[in-house]
Amino acid sequence: MAEYTKVALDAMGGDYAPFEIIKGAVEAVNKRKDIHIVIVGKEDIIKEELAKYTYDKEQIEIKGASEVIETAEPPVMAIRRKKDSSIVVAMNMVKKGEADAFVSAGSSGAILVGGQVIVGRIKGVERPPLAPLLPTKKGFSLLIDCGANVDARPSHLVQFAKMGSIYMEHVMGVKNPKVAIVNIGAEEEKGNALVKETFPMLKACPDINFTGSIEARNIPYGDADVIVCEAFAGNIILKLYEGVGGVLVDKLKEGMMKNLRTKIGALLVKPALKETMKGFDASEYGGAPLLGLNGLVVKTHGNSKAREVCNSIIQCVTFKEQKINEKIKECIQKEQE
Amino acid sequence: MAEYTKVALDAMGGDYAPFEIIKGAVEAVNKRKDIHIVIVGKEDIIKEELAKYTYDKEQIEIKGASEVIETAEPPVMAIRRKKDSSIVVAMNMVKKGEADAFVSAGSSGAILVGGQVIVGRIKGVERPPLAPLLPTKKGFSLLIDCGANVDARPSHLVQFAKMGSIYMEHVMGVKNPKVAIVNIGAEEEKGNALVKETFPMLKACPDINFTGSIEARNIPYGDADVIVCEAFAGNIILKLYEGVGGVLVDKLKEGMMKNLRTKIGALLVKPALKETMKGFDASEYGGAPLLGLNGLVVKTHGNSKAREVCNSIIQCVTFKEQKINEKIKECIQKEQE
Repeated sequence: MAEYTKVALDAMGGDYAPFEIIKGAVEAVNKRKDIHIVIVGKEDIIKEELAKYTYDKEQIEIKGASEVIETAEPPVMAIRRKKDSSIVVAMNMVKKGEADAFVSAGSSGAILVGGQVIVGRIKGVERPPLAPLLPTKKGFSLLIDCGANVDARPSHLVQFAKMGSIYMEHVMGVKNPKVAIVNIGAEEEKGNALVKETFPMLKACPDINFTGSIEARNIPYGDADVIVCEAFAGNIILKLYEGVGGVLVDKLKEGMMKNLRTKIGALLVKPALKETMKGFDASEYGGAPLLGLNGLVVKTHGNSKAREVCNSIIQCVTFKEQKINEKIKECIQKEQE
Repeated sequence: MAEYTKVALDAMGGDYAPFEIIKGAVEAVNKRKDIHIVIVGKEDIIKEELAKYTYDKEQIEIKGASEVIETAEPPVMAIRRKKDSSIVVAMNMVKKGEADAFVSAGSSGAILVGGQVIVGRIKGVERPPLAPLLPTKKGFSLLIDCGANVDARPSHLVQFAKMGSIYMEHVMGVKNPKVAIVNIGAEEEKGNALVKETFPMLKACPDINFTGSIEARNIPYGDADVIVCEAFAGNIILKLYEGVGGVLVDKLKEGMMKNLRTKIGALLVKPALKETMKGFDASEYGGAPLLGLNGLVVKTHGNSKAREVCNSIIQCVTFKEQKINEKIKECIQKEQE
């Protein structure tokens, strides 16, 4: 039997579900023979969508789940009550080892809660961080943590740094990734109580390539590969990135539509601009892994289209092949010896 | 005697000091008869620069200060030791009532420390916040606090909200400004310990128009006028704004220089784009006030040119005319009754 990665895919979550999700699944199996996808959700809808495409029937199967967790639902309650929701059903597959990974564009809250409650943490991992990739001038950086658990402790941040380094090195292929902690100045004595306490611990950590503090201004320039912070700061960074980018692009479009002269100019520059700006688009890099769990859980953007879904599924293969969770286990165990 | 505002101006601080600083002073007095500026710094250099311009000699005087505080110097030490630095000399003028306000593009740290140590806090103000204006899609918002004092308490944030509201309403002319607290979700139960504790206090505060939480994504869209947060988060927001903006503009330029076609297009769109992007330029709005002090202290960007210096000086007039400090005093005293 050939080795393959089995991915449970949430058909029901995200702004463009189920159409773009299923399209992404088909794209992934048509690209790679070593992927097997279980699409989880309302069976009839999935069947109808799948019928539109040509693909190897051996690579995609359907698993029925009658309920859907909506984005606005309180996550803890939703995970507890909706036992037949696509998220709960798929996470149970990961827990039982029936799937290697779970990919969803659904409710962030439910995915974070389900990851901890259903899939469960690797022994010794204090808190599983959500780690999206941020586009930068040079390529991308891993922002860790952007999850829902705020008010982190220094020991959490040190584990984030370790897990983030393993992910960047072995999944994203960044050799000896530079790790930095988000701070309000470059000097070691700067920072809030959390950063001041964490800084010397990161400095003393032999498993990572710690380069010191990074000011928010330098994050978009790609000055570090692994950007460590607690989730409240991480959330601000991730969302402000989107917000400032969105407003600048709007302003740009407005400026280009000003008069006939600019409209002609816009026609000439647009294709090249689009190409350049693509490099600054997070969806190119797939979803954000929730690290430190007994299995892989990947959260893609709520507005994910097929391309991001496909990229996220393919990332799961590297994650499995590179034995990321074994590497995390070893690293965390070493901590406790 | 006519009423005028007396501004002490730091000639020695900032990337373009003293040239752009002095140019800004001349622009300000040439625009407004009700301003009197005392330029503080090395006398011979200031004299030489001033000689290049035409202006009403009654409106500008020079006060000698032989020392300069550099950006890299530890602020507390610098303020303590360099008694004849432009920052210390000018702040002493504000303290003694010889000037209404102090404007500087110099060391943020030294200005924040000097503001508290030399100028001193208004009675009852727990912590003076630094409050820059952020450009937004609709205009601008006040981000409060971006100072150097991290790990704030809820009572600090409530005072920031009150002082920020007074400033936005009476200096920037925003009627009944919308106040929001930076959070990781819109719901009241979300947030870290600080936000959760502060939220109900802001909600119960009768002096402000509190509209709830704001996610970082919505800040650039201008969804609130006064953005309340503690300084660590504020620093991230301010600096990431600059960073993302900078990288996107670089990417844009790169895309426009790709080939002959795009270069021609760039020539056509550039003037209009420049005009549009101006609205997204923080320097249009002048510097950031350090609120809650016995006098006004304004920190302008380190890379300020004459335009920002001039705008910052003119803001001081409104600050004085509108009796902002009296309004802050009243508001804070009410708190303690």
